[in-house]
Amino acid sequence: MKGKIALEECWTIPETFQSFNPSQFAGKGVIGDDLNANLLDVHGKRLQEMDENDVEFMVLSLNAPGVQNVTDPAAAEKLAEIANDKIEAEVLRDPKRFAAFAALSMHDPAQAGRELRRCMSEKKGFVGAMLNDFQSSGPDGNTMLFYDDPKYDEFWKAAHELKAPVYLHPRTSSPLIKEMMWKGRPWLDFSALGYANRLNMHTLGIITGGVLDRFPDLKIIIGHMGEHIPYDLYRIDHKLDRSRFPNMPMRKDRLVRDYFGTQVFITTSGHFSTPALICAMTEIGARSICFSIDYPFESIPNGCCWWDEHVSSVINERDYVDMGRNNALQIFPRLTEGLHGLKEMGPAECGVGGLRAKDGEVTFGMYNKDFNKRGKKIY
Amino acid sequence: MKGKIALEECWTIPETFQSFNPSQFAGKGVIGDDLNANLLDVHGKRLQEMDENDVEFMVLSLNAPGVQNVTDPAAAEKLAEIANDKIEAEVLRDPKRFAAFAALSMHDPAQAGRELRRCMSEKKGFVGAMLNDFQSSGPDGNTMLFYDDPKYDEFWKAAHELKAPVYLHPRTSSPLIKEMMWKGRPWLDFSALGYANRLNMHTLGIITGGVLDRFPDLKIIIGHMGEHIPYDLYRIDHKLDRSRFPNMPMRKDRLVRDYFGTQVFITTSGHFSTPALICAMTEIGARSICFSIDYPFESIPNGCCWWDEHVSSVINERDYVDMGRNNALQIFPRLTEGLHGLKEMGPAECGVGGLRAKDGEVTFGMYNKDFNKRGKKIY
Amino acid sequence: MKGKIALEECWTIPETFQSFNPSQFAGKGVIGDDLNANLLDVHGKRLQEMDENDVEFMVLSLNAPGVQNVTDPAAAEKLAEIANDKIEAEVLRDPKRFAAFAALSMHDPAQAGRELRRCMSEKKGFVGAMLNDFQSSGPDGNTMLFYDDPKYDEFWKAAHELKAPVYLHPRTSSPLIKEMMWKGRPWLDFSALGYANRLNMHTLGIITGGVLDRFPDLKIIIGHMGEHIPYDLYRIDHKLDRSRFPNMPMRKDRLVRDYFGTQVFITTSGHFSTPALICAMTEIGARSICFSIDYPFESIPNGCCWWDEHVSSVINERDYVDMGRNNALQIFPRLTEGLHGLKEMGPAECGVGGLRAKDGEVTFGMYNKDFNKRGKKIY
Amino acid sequence: MKGKIALEECWTIPETFQSFNPSQFAGKGVIGDDLNANLLDVHGKRLQEMDENDVEFMVLSLNAPGVQNVTDPAAAEKLAEIANDKIEAEVLRDPKRFAAFAALSMHDPAQAGRELRRCMSEKKGFVGAMLNDFQSSGPDGNTMLFYDDPKYDEFWKAAHELKAPVYLHPRTSSPLIKEMMWKGRPWLDFSALGYANRLNMHTLGIITGGVLDRFPDLKIIIGHMGEHIPYDLYRIDHKLDRSRFPNMPMRKDRLVRDYFGTQVFITTSGHFSTPALICAMTEIGARSICFSIDYPFESIPNGCCWWDEHVSSVINERDYVDMGRNNALQIFPRLTEGLHGLKEMGPAECGVGGLRAKDGEVTFGMYNKDFNKRGKKIY
Repeated sequence: MKGKIALEECWTIPETFQSFNPSQFAGKGVIGDDLNANLLDVHGKRLQEMDENDVEFMVLSLNAPGVQNVTDPAAAEKLAEIANDKIEAEVLRDPKRFAAFAALSMHDPAQAGRELRRCMSEKKGFVGAMLNDFQSSGPDGNTMLFYDDPKYDEFWKAAHELKAPVYLHPRTSSPLIKEMMWKGRPWLDFSALGYANRLNMHTLGIITGGVLDRFPDLKIIIGHMGEHIPYDLYRIDHKLDRSRFPNMPMRKDRLVRDYFGTQVFITTSGHFSTPALICAMTEIGARSICFSIDYPFESIPNGCCWWDEHVSSVINERDYVDMGRNNALQIFPRLTEGLHGLKEMGPAECGVGGLRAKDGEVTFGMYNKDFNKRGKKIY
Repeated sequence: MKGKIALEECWTIPETFQSFNPSQFAGKGVIGDDLNANLLDVHGKRLQEMDENDVEFMVLSLNAPGVQNVTDPAAAEKLAEIANDKIEAEVLRDPKRFAAFAALSMHDPAQAGRELRRCMSEKKGFVGAMLNDFQSSGPDGNTMLFYDDPKYDEFWKAAHELKAPVYLHPRTSSPLIKEMMWKGRPWLDFSALGYANRLNMHTLGIITGGVLDRFPDLKIIIGHMGEHIPYDLYRIDHKLDRSRFPNMPMRKDRLVRDYFGTQVFITTSGHFSTPALICAMTEIGARSICFSIDYPFESIPNGCCWWDEHVSSVINERDYVDMGRNNALQIFPRLTEGLHGLKEMGPAECGVGGLRAKDGEVTFGMYNKDFNKRGKKIY
Repeated sequence: MKGKIALEECWTIPETFQSFNPSQFAGKGVIGDDLNANLLDVHGKRLQEMDENDVEFMVLSLNAPGVQNVTDPAAAEKLAEIANDKIEAEVLRDPKRFAAFAALSMHDPAQAGRELRRCMSEKKGFVGAMLNDFQSSGPDGNTMLFYDDPKYDEFWKAAHELKAPVYLHPRTSSPLIKEMMWKGRPWLDFSALGYANRLNMHTLGIITGGVLDRFPDLKIIIGHMGEHIPYDLYRIDHKLDRSRFPNMPMRKDRLVRDYFGTQVFITTSGHFSTPALICAMTEIGARSICFSIDYPFESIPNGCCWWDEHVSSVINERDYVDMGRNNALQIFPRLTEGLHGLKEMGPAECGVGGLRAKDGEVTFGMYNKDFNKRGKKIY
Repeated sequence: MKGKIALEECWTIPETFQSFNPSQFAGKGVIGDDLNANLLDVHGKRLQEMDENDVEFMVLSLNAPGVQNVTDPAAAEKLAEIANDKIEAEVLRDPKRFAAFAALSMHDPAQAGRELRRCMSEKKGFVGAMLNDFQSSGPDGNTMLFYDDPKYDEFWKAAHELKAPVYLHPRTSSPLIKEMMWKGRPWLDFSALGYANRLNMHTLGIITGGVLDRFPDLKIIIGHMGEHIPYDLYRIDHKLDRSRFPNMPMRKDRLVRDYFGTQVFITTSGHFSTPALICAMTEIGARSICFSIDYPFESIPNGCCWWDEHVSSVINERDYVDMGRNNALQIFPRLTEGLHGLKEMGPAECGVGGLRAKDGEVTFGMYNKDFNKRGKKIY
């Protein structure tokens, strides 16, 4: 599909390697050739692979856990500022292909709001913010700051006023939790399941904490096909029993389900499952879903093969191009303005649908173009 | 769901009983109390059941086969005219609740266009037209006129210019086909399967005949969850082999699939199947689908129970209210204008989503409101 | 998937070209290189493509309309006999890879039963029969014989006693219907929609005629994802109104839905649609569904790419291998006996599931094996 | 559906109220009339509601966290023994309607195995065991014992030898986690999301720890539609990257997906979502899924209304009765033996499918039995 927009795509600056070296996740050769190099790169291999796979646009964000892992408030604020200035420069080199999410220190809600305002008002490349789950805090890094605490209303108010959607991204455990829970079985801490399990709790905390009610122009986005929430919506709404939890701040006349499509959205990043996509479309609707990859933790060709060759033969054309592109323009109106100037595209413009055979050419089926010989993939 | 709009809802005038008596389908007591009385009624029991089942609005159409069964052109044109004048009067008695599809004789395409123009321009209650499959013609009624014949372009041009969507409705076989095919097994001729099988061919004939290409503002609607077409779209597009059928007039760069959501739409009339609905949503998208009942051949309470109590627990809120109401306003803009003045409604306005428990009230689940006692239905 | 079994795979003998030349459907170059050569071949290119695409076994059947198109009873009976003798010889050359469906003249039910008995009892390569919709009869070929006529009970009794499942296959229209309906738009007569529309009526006629009730060991199979029936089951059962049709012979306490999985089965032949497959799995269950291709009207590589590369990433392993192989052994127990000796296989034996990476090898995703380069298909 | 079997149904003895009072979850009137009374009851209101809702059989288990919350090993072992003796007595009063899961102290794997052996060998009412997530241990109850620790192989070996399936049930957090994570927002700790998030990690720990490989006759069952795992299987298998985690003990040639249907099963307890059920059926197959309620934390009428009235109109008959009953007999063969003697039932025996109208009676649709009046529910 031509014109794809991807929203959860990581990038980093060397400064972050001090507090967190992603190569601990994957040394050279394990995820592509060099994870750290892929993270640092914008206009090189990344852009080339975008071209090769019809990804028109990426919104870049500082690699997780990023600023959320810096326990010293001043250092965290400084890191965010540096990262935001650098990514602005990168975006301005090619604003038709890139935008950015602001990185924010979440130690001080007021300061987070100010930095978000600086990015959204004084700079040209930002379309929202990305927060990597809880903010690590305290001398040993074991204090976890969650943004459903009422003191964060000051931050959410800024996001609401700036119409800056906030993408919530998972991160690794705090040291104490790691020690208590994942010692000897680290694979459980990370992206296989632990990431989603922690972030869906934080997300549900924000929703049930009434943040979206108090700030009705606020939008939040979560990746990985919704961090399990779409599959569990019946149980979530059923078990948030108001007579049992009378102090839960969320509007008494609302279900969690009600926020999808207006204030809560999901992306497909790193979860390229067609049945999960169909389930999510049924439970929260195509308009709540955006394509994303999760580069460089996921392969651009792999995510795009799924979308271009597998999903395209299962999902109707209009929902397909909306999820692949147009929904992002609804959620992030900044993408349609200023330097980016992205426009809605229909199926035909995206190369979707239509008979691809040239006149006189014969069509044998959509899965293998030769009638007699099985196509093999070359790499 | 409050605010439902239903599009395939039959009504008739006594004049039609001469050529076709619906009670042959179902005598007293078989479908409700009296099929013919239900057909003749607008403001009585029909409206009462609409109120009891949250159907805000019905678009009424002359009972099939109606004018399409009248082989004499002059008689057919006269019947259409009478029916249109009468239904206009009925609609004007309560335009907040009713609109109409024009009935048309299809013997003469030019005359059909003129009568459609009369209804859409000189009258206030019409939002489009309904055609009941082929027009019976010839002395023995065995000639079937299909509207993909190029001579009907004159009619389609009028519909396109008037922006009058055309609903295609099934009908019974011609006498000769009935004799050849269904003798001794009449149940195969009708709504169980035969209706859909014939109408999907006619519909595909119109699409592959290039009518929608030549008249890009034309919209067609089919009922019964798409008369099987959504389920079969892969095979339809795959087998309309252009090298085998080089003279097929449809645009060479198009698939049948491409027309859904812009020029082709379906309704749920008479096919209250949730898996079929999910399949259709996947294949053609929620925006191509509208709720409908098929009264009085279907029970209003039965169709609305399905939609209100069964579909509502399966489909996300926004697609649900769009299919139940808003899509109809997109397809038939006349509904938003003039005397009707219908408006888009969100889930909360439609009573969808939200916690229905009052403050302090306990919720035990969405399927049975009492914790300990199984609810029984009373009738 | 290794070990696939395909059930609707055509073959022919030159004698059939007299009454029906398939190349009218597709000249050289349109479907593969030469449709007629593909039909005549068994052990050459067909077997090679089976090997290349992991099709372990094919049940061969005489090309439609075959015997059903021969209006002269004696000639029809002779043609069936010749075809059955020839296909027996072909099967016996390689019984680990091929079995056959008997071709039958349906002019005389008793003779049809006798010929089926000859094939199932005196020969070794037959596992059931295939009937190509109605039998053409009469001097002009316009009489259509349908097998729900009570006189065919004599035939069905034989199939029931022989435990010979009967595959119902679509065919072209009779000359009169062709003239009345499809003149000038032949693409509607064939596989895009017409085939299914006619065969689903005949199938429903047989079921509602009570044939499956009178012969409880009889099984029937239909291709093309069930000729639309799974999508329409709600409406079919709802509209076969017993108070309206008190003479319909089917058991009064049964729905059409009830016969699936025990007496009625479908295959995927020629309809490689994943949403339709999911819909069918929901409505009739995986155990009612078998993989098939429809060679040589469909490409073996295309059908197998769909099954091996697309369906495998959507459907759970056990239903997948059952539909791809094991269900066929349940429906056709002959396949597990005698010369064929096929056995059930689990996912691992079929190469399904499991981590395909060798030790030390890196996995980047299931859709594209290289992290950085998009795989292209070569042909 | 007649003949339903439910597997995750709680019961308790007054002794457990000391360490954990369920009424903290819900005082009188919040979940039914009296949660504690419902937990203590077997043959009274529980059985009456089973009768009223066609639940033929319940496997009872000690209320969570039960023994897993008792930090003193001797006390835990004693409690398990008392509970098992008492539930045996209850089951023997009515073994055609009830069986039990053994409660086990998991402080000492060898002792756990011995107690399981005592229940499975010396008693007649047990069909397996239920473990409530981690075992609380240590003086402050903050040590969490997870059963993927190799020392638990001694326990798993016993379960494997005894062919005793083990149901894994969620529980509340340890005190420290509660303090760190859920202070001020307790609704996140419990069944809305926290339960599943913790148990799916423990379950994945057991699977990836290779327990199922070392004990191939071992089966585990998880409730709540699989605690999110079916929705996330692509990502789980994709992210358990063997080159990154070379020491993960699970078989190198296996995916987590491969264990479903043979060693891992799920139930519907407390998650009455039709789209989630369809997603699970697609991803892990109907044979991996069993009906359950989660009484008395869920209402029997609510869970059964969902299954009997909602699911029945969406899922094919055979998968439906297998999930509702027969799969349980496959997973727990003890249910078919001895005192219980349960047998497989087909759709007709379960009252599923079939035309329910009596001869001469009229059918108007499956959602509302009266043609003209909307059925209201009475309670």
